[in-house]
Amino acid sequence: MSPEPNLSDPTPSDSSSTPTVNLEAMGRRARAASRRLATLGSAEKNRALLAIADALLERRESILEANATDIEAARQQGMSESLLDRLRLDAARLESLAEDVRQVAELEDPVGEELGSRLLPNGLRLSRRRIPLGVVAAIYEARPNVTVDIAALCLKTGNATLLRGGKETVHSNRALRAAIAAALEAQGLPAAAVQSLDDPDRRWVSELLRLDRWVDMLVPRGGAGLHRLCREQATIPVITGGIGICHLFLDEDADFDRAVDIVENAKVQRPSVCNALDTLLVHREALEHLAPIAQRLRSRGVELRADDEALGALRGAGIEAVAAGPEDFDQEWLSLILGIRVVSGLEEAIEHVQEHSTEHSDGILTTSLERARSFVDQVQSAAVYVNASTRFTDGGAFGLGAEVAVSTQKLHARGPMGLKELTTYKWIGWGDGHIRS
Amino acid sequence: MSPEPNLSDPTPSDSSSTPTVNLEAMGRRARAASRRLATLGSAEKNRALLAIADALLERRESILEANATDIEAARQQGMSESLLDRLRLDAARLESLAEDVRQVAELEDPVGEELGSRLLPNGLRLSRRRIPLGVVAAIYEARPNVTVDIAALCLKTGNATLLRGGKETVHSNRALRAAIAAALEAQGLPAAAVQSLDDPDRRWVSELLRLDRWVDMLVPRGGAGLHRLCREQATIPVITGGIGICHLFLDEDADFDRAVDIVENAKVQRPSVCNALDTLLVHREALEHLAPIAQRLRSRGVELRADDEALGALRGAGIEAVAAGPEDFDQEWLSLILGIRVVSGLEEAIEHVQEHSTEHSDGILTTSLERARSFVDQVQSAAVYVNASTRFTDGGAFGLGAEVAVSTQKLHARGPMGLKELTTYKWIGWGDGHIRS
Repeated sequence: MSPEPNLSDPTPSDSSSTPTVNLEAMGRRARAASRRLATLGSAEKNRALLAIADALLERRESILEANATDIEAARQQGMSESLLDRLRLDAARLESLAEDVRQVAELEDPVGEELGSRLLPNGLRLSRRRIPLGVVAAIYEARPNVTVDIAALCLKTGNATLLRGGKETVHSNRALRAAIAAALEAQGLPAAAVQSLDDPDRRWVSELLRLDRWVDMLVPRGGAGLHRLCREQATIPVITGGIGICHLFLDEDADFDRAVDIVENAKVQRPSVCNALDTLLVHREALEHLAPIAQRLRSRGVELRADDEALGALRGAGIEAVAAGPEDFDQEWLSLILGIRVVSGLEEAIEHVQEHSTEHSDGILTTSLERARSFVDQVQSAAVYVNASTRFTDGGAFGLGAEVAVSTQKLHARGPMGLKELTTYKWIGWGDGHIRS
Repeated sequence: MSPEPNLSDPTPSDSSSTPTVNLEAMGRRARAASRRLATLGSAEKNRALLAIADALLERRESILEANATDIEAARQQGMSESLLDRLRLDAARLESLAEDVRQVAELEDPVGEELGSRLLPNGLRLSRRRIPLGVVAAIYEARPNVTVDIAALCLKTGNATLLRGGKETVHSNRALRAAIAAALEAQGLPAAAVQSLDDPDRRWVSELLRLDRWVDMLVPRGGAGLHRLCREQATIPVITGGIGICHLFLDEDADFDRAVDIVENAKVQRPSVCNALDTLLVHREALEHLAPIAQRLRSRGVELRADDEALGALRGAGIEAVAAGPEDFDQEWLSLILGIRVVSGLEEAIEHVQEHSTEHSDGILTTSLERARSFVDQVQSAAVYVNASTRFTDGGAFGLGAEVAVSTQKLHARGPMGLKELTTYKWIGWGDGHIRS
């Protein structure tokens, strides 16, 4: 959701170290482990999850020690406080991480469900059974909680994982993975079900992207550069997402009081995430209602970048704003900045969204049923809202119980991906000597 | 399903022709057309399909003339009779193609269905609505019927298409697309809903593969080389599939009489397609029952490539067979050849399948419920059969009404892809001033 430092540069580092990683072998082991995981019942998988939660707490000291090493090194490298905060583990965070794993154990297991079972006219019994994807690879930032999070969700759904976290979190990830491995082995499960790629050399990322023989799905969790890199170089099917240029359209007959709260919430409640608001489109006939919204935003420290018409209205009302450049409407701000543009009506608003949205989360604020319907029908974003904040696009808020990623592509899954999106299906045909005529 | 000649070589031809194609513009037009198609109701789409069927017949003469030009050129280039047959159109085939389009109009339209609508605890009404993918690109062989087929299925589901058929079918495709365009325009729909890339220069394929800004899904229909090329080079999400190394395992207590018919059907009924049998695995305890199966296959002209143990048994029974090389168990034969290998039991059979299958279609012939269940649980192929021919893996046979492709990847769809697999979904949240706390 925020940029992965430098990962958009796939050039191998010129480290002269000899290879310490055999990715091909890791892939093979992951595939073998995935075959074992695919045959487990929910009870076994849940036992393993609870054992992992226990192991995280039992190994608290070594994990926090490893994390302190990472923090110290990152601080010396000049990592910003906000990134350091994402990297940091402490006793309370570890406790909550273990609790998250226990929560995953509580979720319903989608694997094994049979869909659309039916008897074909020729007597062949046909159904589709939900099965794990197999091996899931994830590339993400220096956030040790993601390591545990993805491992747990994948284990729950019978998938093996190949994890590549940010290089600043190598020691933490090693310690976390050691805890996970110990718990898996104590349950008689293969430690290779969860593997992490700890060598910081960037060459392994490029290699990982081409491991399609062993990996079934790749989930990048990082900025636009990482997603682009994966799309360009990966031979593994990728889930692109997590980049949100999000819009709200303030219609001429919106409930303007509520609009103030919705726009504030969408922009301010957590500005650093992908479902935060980036651009407010204002119906020309609603321009007089922009001031109270803008005042609320200014009071929360939001910088306003307005097109000429909006700028005139704002300055006329004595509200500070700067002139937007054209590129300002193609920004995922991830910070307290908002683009504001005046449009002539619904049609122009939809055109703007179609041109500038990343198809993550876009909404309309209106009391007109007709225009609400038109907006919902014509905007094809992963999440489309009427009179609600864009901030709801989230596995937790949608009641999925968990979130692996937010997809903005069209294949496989869109929007928040929960446990079901970590599965695929196979067709099963039970015959009795059936041949095709 | 069978190899695309040379398409695995992506080198641009050294033709010095100036660019005749603006793919970027084609992509942009396709996207614009897709937005229009996405708002159409089923009745409008069906009217357009019927108009296309009519136009194919009205323009019979120009289409058949164009096809004759292609046939003549292909014959001079030395195209084989079987490929010429796939390229050829005649009055009867055109009639049946038009009838296929009418059949598509009859199918149920999956677009617009709302899934899992529910009221969240906070009162936000959340649902997922099935919508078109947007723009679908297809790369396929010199088969003009595929042009019409994919265009019709995509139009039915509100998708625009960018079609790239084999270069030998350029004139036919132009004529077909002209008929489709005329029908679309007569219905007030954008002709850009169906575009074909007719310039035979291979450079356009490489460019098309990177058109992810405008294309949402790429469907290659061709041999392994084409699929590999797409996976390697495409930045568009690809549906990999259509390559089937298919297995049947003859268990020790199979119904051996029925097994003769099933193996014959799987191998002989249509050997050139992806769901035809490639390898027969024989339980050592069932080796004595191999002879009748092999005799039936020999009587149908099948060449048998057997491992040492099977070869001994076959020759002992006076049945002609050749010794299999190890690479013979990694072949999609697409012809009247069958690999035969003896295994020690279910476990070794499953291991062989896991190692050699392309996860297309694999089955077990047994009367043991326990082993049938084990096989079905452990083999993760797109289609898994018990006591049935592998030949059933097909949109028609599965009752999907249509087939776009057969996927063997894990993302998005597996096995035969019908109309639903040409759709995705968006989340819709209807609120009343909802903000996230």
